[in-house]
Amino acid sequence: MKEHGKESVILQASERLDDLLTHELRIIQSPEVFSFSMDAVLLARFATVPAKGRIMDLCTGNGVIPLLLSTRTRAAIEGLEIQPRLADMARRSIALNGLEERIRIHEGDLKQFEPDADRPFYEMITVNPPYMPLTAGEPKLSEHQAIARHELACTLEDVIAQSARWLRTGGKLAMVHRASRLGDIIALMRAYRIEPKRIRLVHPRIGTEANMVLIEAVRDAKPDVRILPPLIVYNEGNTYCQELMDIYYGESPQLKDGSHEDQ
Amino acid sequence: MKEHGKESVILQASERLDDLLTHELRIIQSPEVFSFSMDAVLLARFATVPAKGRIMDLCTGNGVIPLLLSTRTRAAIEGLEIQPRLADMARRSIALNGLEERIRIHEGDLKQFEPDADRPFYEMITVNPPYMPLTAGEPKLSEHQAIARHELACTLEDVIAQSARWLRTGGKLAMVHRASRLGDIIALMRAYRIEPKRIRLVHPRIGTEANMVLIEAVRDAKPDVRILPPLIVYNEGNTYCQELMDIYYGESPQLKDGSHEDQ
Repeated sequence: MKEHGKESVILQASERLDDLLTHELRIIQSPEVFSFSMDAVLLARFATVPAKGRIMDLCTGNGVIPLLLSTRTRAAIEGLEIQPRLADMARRSIALNGLEERIRIHEGDLKQFEPDADRPFYEMITVNPPYMPLTAGEPKLSEHQAIARHELACTLEDVIAQSARWLRTGGKLAMVHRASRLGDIIALMRAYRIEPKRIRLVHPRIGTEANMVLIEAVRDAKPDVRILPPLIVYNEGNTYCQELMDIYYGESPQLKDGSHEDQ
Repeated sequence: MKEHGKESVILQASERLDDLLTHELRIIQSPEVFSFSMDAVLLARFATVPAKGRIMDLCTGNGVIPLLLSTRTRAAIEGLEIQPRLADMARRSIALNGLEERIRIHEGDLKQFEPDADRPFYEMITVNPPYMPLTAGEPKLSEHQAIARHELACTLEDVIAQSARWLRTGGKLAMVHRASRLGDIIALMRAYRIEPKRIRLVHPRIGTEANMVLIEAVRDAKPDVRILPPLIVYNEGNTYCQELMDIYYGESPQLKDGSHEDQ
């Protein structure tokens, strides 16, 4: 591991330090508070990341998407998180990886957040929002987990409406969500003038229905969407398909550093 | 072949008699005027066909979808076609197969058409509409082909708006279209209160983008859509995948008659 001079970062109760398996990145997680899922990893790989400019990750949680995006671009990356506990986890992970100059975490509610007045627009917004409508109860969750998974603090429409305000014309919104919400997502994006341009369905196995959708939309673009090849997660033998292995353990497609040849 | 007593039907210039490869159905086609495509066959198989009631096939062309649906249901089937030449082909095919009591072809413009006043609603509407926006020129086409393929006589919005008028609550609209139009389709269905509930993407090969989409929507239904397993058309060796072979040569999933076991 690299010595960032931040090895003295203290983990709080229930937290652990996990390896992001790329570019020697590490991340603070907690099974009781927040752990990133495969969805975030897929989104960070799916997004058409700009080489420079500014990127915002909404509902950033413990900052996994900004950390992963930092390996693919030299753009300035920001993250916005409503839960102080998670924003703090994200900031400590960023410090641990020595990325304070590259990634900035805002703590706040996206319904109230305002970008810097002198640079109000982003080239790209990424978001892995809460998936569950308010009606779907899941009583075993902690409050932290409930806010991250249910539309308690923000709805899908909040996410899309604010993205539309903050994206420059031609800027991209990349989202991962439950496949069952595809109708809602497309209709809302259309309503806020963010046009879906790339869609990829994620199927657990060949022959099963999709459970997730990756979707990238462009502010003020013309219609016409590309439906990419399906992403099949598991082989028949319950092992990850080669593409998933490449995503988890392979090199970054944009910034190769050769440090993972033995993984 | 069955003897329907209609063997004397006269084929017109350029027409030929093709085998629909199921239930001994035959259909009149013409390479210069209209030939059905795989899309129509896939739609007739994809649609959740009601066992009874009334079905309308819009933009029916030479009537291929009503003919195929007749093997899957006892519902009364209608077809609507704006081109007199194609409506005539469809009627002759229906007579040739002895299905005059089951399938009725209307000649007319869907923007003006009105269902029977005493039975104004349908359980299901199917449609394989013109795919190409008006801006996309294809000068080699005959007028018949141009109207069938381009949005000359009706737009996607015309199709969806009229379907919304004619479907009963809970009635289904099943459509096949270019995958690139998925955003338009979902947004328009939403706008006319027809909720997408089942989507299947058609990919020419594993690893290629989808070129077609099958979509079924329900009048006044709640959101939440199922994304079915992808339909992959060709094996690596340019032969049809097994599912396509089953669709083309297999038995009907709802009305099995055992007559195709040797195919």
